[in-house]
Amino acid sequence: MTQILILGAGFGGVWAAEALANQPAQVLILDKNNYHTFLPLLYQVAAAELEPERIAQPVRSIIRQRNNVRFALQEVVGVDLAAQTVQTAVGQTLAYDYLLIALGSTNHYFGIPGAAEHSFTLKSVEEGIALRNHILRCVEKAARETDTAVRRQLLTFVIIGGGPTGVEYAGALSELLYQPLDKDFPELDLRHEAKVVLVEAADGLLRGIGGGDYALQRLQRMGVDVRLNTQVSEIQADAVTLNKGETIIPTVSPIWTAGVQGVPLAQLDLPRVRGGRLAVRPTLQVEGHDNVFVVGDLAYLEQDGQMLPGVAQVAMQGGRHAAQNILRHLAGQSLLPFRYKDKGAMATIGRNAAVANIGGRQFTGFVAWVLWLVIHIFFLIGFRNRIGVLTNWAWNYLFYERVVRLILPSKRVE
Amino acid sequence: MTQILILGAGFGGVWAAEALANQPAQVLILDKNNYHTFLPLLYQVAAAELEPERIAQPVRSIIRQRNNVRFALQEVVGVDLAAQTVQTAVGQTLAYDYLLIALGSTNHYFGIPGAAEHSFTLKSVEEGIALRNHILRCVEKAARETDTAVRRQLLTFVIIGGGPTGVEYAGALSELLYQPLDKDFPELDLRHEAKVVLVEAADGLLRGIGGGDYALQRLQRMGVDVRLNTQVSEIQADAVTLNKGETIIPTVSPIWTAGVQGVPLAQLDLPRVRGGRLAVRPTLQVEGHDNVFVVGDLAYLEQDGQMLPGVAQVAMQGGRHAAQNILRHLAGQSLLPFRYKDKGAMATIGRNAAVANIGGRQFTGFVAWVLWLVIHIFFLIGFRNRIGVLTNWAWNYLFYERVVRLILPSKRVE
Repeated sequence: MTQILILGAGFGGVWAAEALANQPAQVLILDKNNYHTFLPLLYQVAAAELEPERIAQPVRSIIRQRNNVRFALQEVVGVDLAAQTVQTAVGQTLAYDYLLIALGSTNHYFGIPGAAEHSFTLKSVEEGIALRNHILRCVEKAARETDTAVRRQLLTFVIIGGGPTGVEYAGALSELLYQPLDKDFPELDLRHEAKVVLVEAADGLLRGIGGGDYALQRLQRMGVDVRLNTQVSEIQADAVTLNKGETIIPTVSPIWTAGVQGVPLAQLDLPRVRGGRLAVRPTLQVEGHDNVFVVGDLAYLEQDGQMLPGVAQVAMQGGRHAAQNILRHLAGQSLLPFRYKDKGAMATIGRNAAVANIGGRQFTGFVAWVLWLVIHIFFLIGFRNRIGVLTNWAWNYLFYERVVRLILPSKRVE
Repeated sequence: MTQILILGAGFGGVWAAEALANQPAQVLILDKNNYHTFLPLLYQVAAAELEPERIAQPVRSIIRQRNNVRFALQEVVGVDLAAQTVQTAVGQTLAYDYLLIALGSTNHYFGIPGAAEHSFTLKSVEEGIALRNHILRCVEKAARETDTAVRRQLLTFVIIGGGPTGVEYAGALSELLYQPLDKDFPELDLRHEAKVVLVEAADGLLRGIGGGDYALQRLQRMGVDVRLNTQVSEIQADAVTLNKGETIIPTVSPIWTAGVQGVPLAQLDLPRVRGGRLAVRPTLQVEGHDNVFVVGDLAYLEQDGQMLPGVAQVAMQGGRHAAQNILRHLAGQSLLPFRYKDKGAMATIGRNAAVANIGGRQFTGFVAWVLWLVIHIFFLIGFRNRIGVLTNWAWNYLFYERVVRLILPSKRVE
């Protein structure tokens, strides 16, 4: 039977598997984690607002009803396009008839000195937990620190990048610091001592979504120090340097949300184009290999002269489309070009505040926030997770509380 | 103002702090974690049944309403009884007028070779997560293993100790393997290939609680291989040796629940008696230091000729009593001897099955299970955690599901 290998259980891989369910082919998904991550809500894990379990769903429970879809917890280290095999970290070699590469993106630092070494990031559950632990530890350390300068450094958090992740995390982090943590730490005056700085190189926030002016005003009202037209020159263990030394902000908490690149794969003989992405034809096939497809953040494809953005919707639609093209190829039909339907974009800033761009219409404030809520709940994989997330949100909303302020073990040990 | 230091935010420390709330003294709790752990349900974390967040409650949120009670995230490394100070891992020295030591217990291996190096354990949230990750990784590895002997080794789990923790975990683990994981892994036949072995040195389970015969039958019906009158002689990375070499069970999953000892503290000039405990007078004071109290698993006290058991109830009642004695001492009143009121003991074995001993009456089966449920929900700290735990349990009960089958980051990296 035809063997289809899917590399990665993100939005692209899982939506492709859904489209291949109960079709005449064996499908195997490989991922280095045993769960699918709902990345759009990762910033809430890092802001102690949601348990990590809420945004992670075991892949096996997603595919359980699909008889022809299997999963293996294996990290992919290479692809041999000639032999049509995939190599995994434990030394297994798996053969495929069709390959769908959906490995996504990782952080990219544009060569800024110290950024890779010292930054906290928001691209995986692991990173989200490490950041949550770090924030809570900083506040605990500040609580026993008598030196004012050191305390200020511990309580200064610098978020780099004014895109959706940066804006959302800036809002969530300032709410965490100024509301529940302020109540938790009577020995500190967090409303005056804690500071969230949001650094953006361009002259506005949320480029590509819109609503940047609203987001700016809202964040400023929430106490966030937003610095537009500002470049990060260097990141050190104890400070972030802006505009080539013009400003130095003492902090042990630089949070990088400013850039991503396609996940690197040591052994894969395909040329990388912009942002470490792999060029694909409009059918989502790579050049020269009709049985190899790339979707999501790892694929480079232009539409109307613009590169497709690295968002969940592109990966989901791309995954589904690549799966359908594989089935057409199997059936001897001609493949169809992929066309991304932009259903809109949105970012939440805090209580009752969001921006949304849906069908060309721009919403801000409470209406956008409710839209954001409904859409995120709708797309959260797993009925039970939806209930859990709603419960947490309702609790936070009603009681100005955060429920998950625990420093639990993570791989990044301080 | 009088300064009371409480070492440890377990049951003893938290209940003592409650009793000292709004009294004329400053109270400071020290713990190396920022949360209180509801240890009686830790085995459910390790069985992928509850999220770790459900059994952990931030200490600061517990004491938030208590104006005279503070918390500091600090590990205690020593006590200077003469100077009346406590030393912490970050080099701080904290002075006290009264000291309440409630640091609890840690694992004890009775010198069995390899036990400390190779065993998984169930004494902290961290250990529970590490064990959960390990179990799930073993099954994932087995799914891609073609060698029958290796697969069998990966799917054999040996629990050492037939007390409440061992019995409860044996039941929960076999339910996890034979129900949700069996559905998750169509490539394995877990009902035949996976095996849970429970090893107990004595001739019965659940000594001190009763209901051992019922537990034995019930576990056997659930497929657990219970071995009574069996000694563990050695634990290796790949096997557990029983009865001096009579039996060798190939496994990479020895789970130690057989012994505990008082938490060691490098710099504390007090004699250790049985099980690494510190001897206390009936007033819970240590000999020679009227202002130093010890409660919980770390205290050695006999009642009616028997050492008080290492259970939550003893710690809670002891913590409250020590707090009241501190207040009496402050007020110049004579101190009262501690008397533990045994409210009963219980252990759950699985769906609809538990044993309970309440007020001298023995319950088994469904009635005991409902009692267990109600009492554990009642004692879970935090209203919101109660709801969350109930939701998880209801879901598991109705759908034979486990919701938390995620391999999330933990400090113990394989």
